[in-house]
Amino acid sequence: MPRGGPDIGALLKPDEVREWRSLTVENPKSKPTAAEAAALKEKKAAEKKGKDSLLKKVVERINDSTIKKDKIKKALDKAAAEAPQEEVPRPFWLDPPSGTRDFEPAEMKVRNWLFDHMRQTAKEFGFKEYDAPVLEHVELYERKAGEEISQQMYCFTDKEGARVTLRPEMTPSLARMVLNLTNLATGEVRAALPLKWFSIPQCWRFETTQRGRKREHYQWNMDIVGEPGIVAEVELLTAVATFFKRLGVGPDIVGIRVNSRKVLDVAITKAGVPRDKFERVCVVVDKLDKIGAEAVKCMLTEDLELPSQTADVILQCLQASSVDDLAKAVGLSQSDPAIAELKTLFELCKAYGVGDYLDFDASVVRGLAYYTGVVFEAFDRKGELRAICGGGRYDRLAELYGGEKCQIPFCGFGFGDCVVVELLKDYGLMPDASPSVDVVVAPFDATMQPHALKVAASLRKAGLSVDAALTACKARKAFDLANRQGARLVAFVAPGEWARGLVRVKDMEVKDPSTNEGLQVDVPFADLASVVSHLQNAASAKGASWVPLGVDAAPAPSTQVGATLGTAGKLSLKATAKFSALAL
Amino acid sequence: MPRGGPDIGALLKPDEVREWRSLTVENPKSKPTAAEAAALKEKKAAEKKGKDSLLKKVVERINDSTIKKDKIKKALDKAAAEAPQEEVPRPFWLDPPSGTRDFEPAEMKVRNWLFDHMRQTAKEFGFKEYDAPVLEHVELYERKAGEEISQQMYCFTDKEGARVTLRPEMTPSLARMVLNLTNLATGEVRAALPLKWFSIPQCWRFETTQRGRKREHYQWNMDIVGEPGIVAEVELLTAVATFFKRLGVGPDIVGIRVNSRKVLDVAITKAGVPRDKFERVCVVVDKLDKIGAEAVKCMLTEDLELPSQTADVILQCLQASSVDDLAKAVGLSQSDPAIAELKTLFELCKAYGVGDYLDFDASVVRGLAYYTGVVFEAFDRKGELRAICGGGRYDRLAELYGGEKCQIPFCGFGFGDCVVVELLKDYGLMPDASPSVDVVVAPFDATMQPHALKVAASLRKAGLSVDAALTACKARKAFDLANRQGARLVAFVAPGEWARGLVRVKDMEVKDPSTNEGLQVDVPFADLASVVSHLQNAASAKGASWVPLGVDAAPAPSTQVGATLGTAGKLSLKATAKFSALAL
Repeated sequence: MPRGGPDIGALLKPDEVREWRSLTVENPKSKPTAAEAAALKEKKAAEKKGKDSLLKKVVERINDSTIKKDKIKKALDKAAAEAPQEEVPRPFWLDPPSGTRDFEPAEMKVRNWLFDHMRQTAKEFGFKEYDAPVLEHVELYERKAGEEISQQMYCFTDKEGARVTLRPEMTPSLARMVLNLTNLATGEVRAALPLKWFSIPQCWRFETTQRGRKREHYQWNMDIVGEPGIVAEVELLTAVATFFKRLGVGPDIVGIRVNSRKVLDVAITKAGVPRDKFERVCVVVDKLDKIGAEAVKCMLTEDLELPSQTADVILQCLQASSVDDLAKAVGLSQSDPAIAELKTLFELCKAYGVGDYLDFDASVVRGLAYYTGVVFEAFDRKGELRAICGGGRYDRLAELYGGEKCQIPFCGFGFGDCVVVELLKDYGLMPDASPSVDVVVAPFDATMQPHALKVAASLRKAGLSVDAALTACKARKAFDLANRQGARLVAFVAPGEWARGLVRVKDMEVKDPSTNEGLQVDVPFADLASVVSHLQNAASAKGASWVPLGVDAAPAPSTQVGATLGTAGKLSLKATAKFSALAL
Repeated sequence: MPRGGPDIGALLKPDEVREWRSLTVENPKSKPTAAEAAALKEKKAAEKKGKDSLLKKVVERINDSTIKKDKIKKALDKAAAEAPQEEVPRPFWLDPPSGTRDFEPAEMKVRNWLFDHMRQTAKEFGFKEYDAPVLEHVELYERKAGEEISQQMYCFTDKEGARVTLRPEMTPSLARMVLNLTNLATGEVRAALPLKWFSIPQCWRFETTQRGRKREHYQWNMDIVGEPGIVAEVELLTAVATFFKRLGVGPDIVGIRVNSRKVLDVAITKAGVPRDKFERVCVVVDKLDKIGAEAVKCMLTEDLELPSQTADVILQCLQASSVDDLAKAVGLSQSDPAIAELKTLFELCKAYGVGDYLDFDASVVRGLAYYTGVVFEAFDRKGELRAICGGGRYDRLAELYGGEKCQIPFCGFGFGDCVVVELLKDYGLMPDASPSVDVVVAPFDATMQPHALKVAASLRKAGLSVDAALTACKARKAFDLANRQGARLVAFVAPGEWARGLVRVKDMEVKDPSTNEGLQVDVPFADLASVVSHLQNAASAKGASWVPLGVDAAPAPSTQVGATLGTAGKLSLKATAKFSALAL
């Protein structure tokens, strides 16, 4: 570190500086008109939002509490203004391929945090995890219903001539796996139904890269196989709502829109439209938000050759404001199964305690061809983001793949990792992404290195995560390292203490009232397994207020996570370093 | 289920029957000669081993304690003998692409168990997790040193003409990510060194599929960036050994062979061979085991045009039986840095408590071009399997990618998920793969469904994993479901109790001495959060011996795993269902 404090400019990454520069809105050279001033105000607001978010990210990445946020902001301004050209030509292959992401540790920590909440939720609901290859046969997706997904596949021909693709979604792989448990001649599944399975696969699409549109994302999938009744949908909707609750996202922030394609199906059938057009009608109708009612009607009557009157009924269905309204629009009685089922769904979800999250919305049909019944999607109530997750019932996919005997009901949802993170950022619900270990072990000099390694091994046996310094590390350097690593404890292995069989342990979270510094205890080497008791006793003897180490008092998962929210940058033993259970 | 017990044949999967049939060794039609009899004996032994292993897998998958292993064996024999043709033509795209794997829940549970041990080990050592896209630019691997890896890449050209590949290994992606934190003009890394990073990426290769050779595997990677000293290697070797210990694999079962390419480098340099041939020499020498000394010498003298004498010195180096021997072979003194470093490595690993796992082995050079110093590989001492993991120091990869200013030392290892599982199977160290939830909630009839969902929600709030039955489920069916799901508790939601605000909970792990059946308690609905206390009190009142639920008494991770080993098929609340900490 140079004299006069760290060179913050040197800590910035070129892509951060480039992004900062791209966010900067230039001031107009002449006095703006009223209209220009209004537009400028809007741009400046966007600039502030973008820069605040980027600055937060950079602060978290640098993760040095001695460097103030303001200084980092100034350094970013300076670096961006100086518009430095790339120092040395950087080969393109040092970047990840277009539209893909690297996950540095801080980003990976957030990803793991999110995935662990998904896993935890699925397991609370008794679902079992599965996985399938990221590569699949192209034929698995060739449904020819004009969905966006099959047009945007990341597909290629391999060296043996097989047509393969990076999977665009997980559902076909699940159906394939279930059919591999099925006798195609009888439709009998060689496993007790229903199956409740989940997965968090990476999914891919190939489209021209645009700002904010990536080519890959992770998508949490939960599916129930073999249960025709509406209770399956209820279970999935409740799992989604429970996941939101775990993240601190209440029904005031998000909602889940629910509809049923069965009603649309009835309307179309009543109008005498051939059944095989149903999927294509749904794919067209899903575009309503994007292209408007006029264009949808045009596609229904021209591309799909529906009578104009039928197109009108369909569009009317989409505008129904309640289940009763919908029944009326299609001319169904309240007791019609498709209507009754929807009503039961809302009642059961209410009983399950998640009714507040649910809205009936007749305009939701989802863009995938294969849905046959209930469809749903979660959305932010402010209406700023794309759909957060989507799902529904698809009772005919197994038949399409495996033949007419395979009448296996399925329903499920896919929940991406990108939109929900945007939402969490907007509401300040992101977790602490700073690093965290329990202890740094610091050898005083090279002769102490072998002893320091023994100390590290003993502390790990005590269940602590230990960063063993790889080179000699006197006090100042050791504290710097501990600070950087988010370690609460430092174990000094120095000749004086070691000759007496002792290791000096400093607890930077508990203050010794007599010195007003971190509590310090010399622990016998042979007794390192009880290092926490030693510290606790010393705190008690000195009248210091003890702060429990997460490793000894692991609270329930949701509490634990709650406790880490909003503590970014704080030097403490993070609950997150505990991993005390194994996810079998 | 048909009368007369389950039809076990219907429970078998076609691929299991096919595999069983392929394992079957036909008896010879005429009396075998002595040589034929010996060969037959060997084949029969292999048949037994293969069938035992497959049978175990099938038993675990079916996971029904009411079906005896013998019956499943008979059903397999019968199905294989009847050589059933596929009932209905099965489209090829219902199988995963050639050389890839589906993970059904039982397989996924084993994978998660293994990965969690890897993660836990890495975190105990203070390493941080990262990730990179499974897709990379082909250019990242074009090192032209004749390694197997670049010849077997799963590469293709995307729709925009970019040459991309499913990554064959993780190291180049790590180097790329570190260089994205580096000023290429100065070599300065914008992060405090050393970095200690780990990842568990899926890696791919494209080769003709053969029995037992897959096109993808997962590979645990741990790397230290920015530390030139041998303590980095010591840390990594100790992490590998600690991982083996966690799995119950002692130094009697596996060893880690260690060598240093630096000594070979000295030998080559002394003989006046140009430095740029070093990598290719290593790649050739790595083939020694496969092609023999004669062929290696031939490649060294002909392909690489080394003098015959130099080739002899190199081959001699590979035969040294100790570090001292090696020094002698090359003509180095004991105090030469390359020799002293190797000695220090063994001493420090001994101090660290993992000396028993390490062997010096001069013949280990590893097949990757980029290693520059210490190289190592783990192997099974019986010598039946391929290398379990491999790694070493690669101090020049950053320079190769980023230019001459980028002198950033790296060392690390890759540890695949396939060979170690073979080893664990051989030694009976695989975990219990049967499903496990805490409670099954069973509604007596459809009218009880909404109440059952409330009960499920309350039990989940108590921290239990809950499988809510989706349809009415009277006693027999509920117990079947609990049995299948590995649930210890069943909560019956029936009109009689519900009218009195009660839920009947049965604990199938604790025996009531008065009835000799599972302990049964009626718990007030409002009190379900304390269901475990209710059961425990009832057990105490009835003099039943209480079995703690894993959720309340979570032991340290390694103990927890130990406790689940070898309990396959047992009906109990598995520690593994707890997931009580979140892996942030």
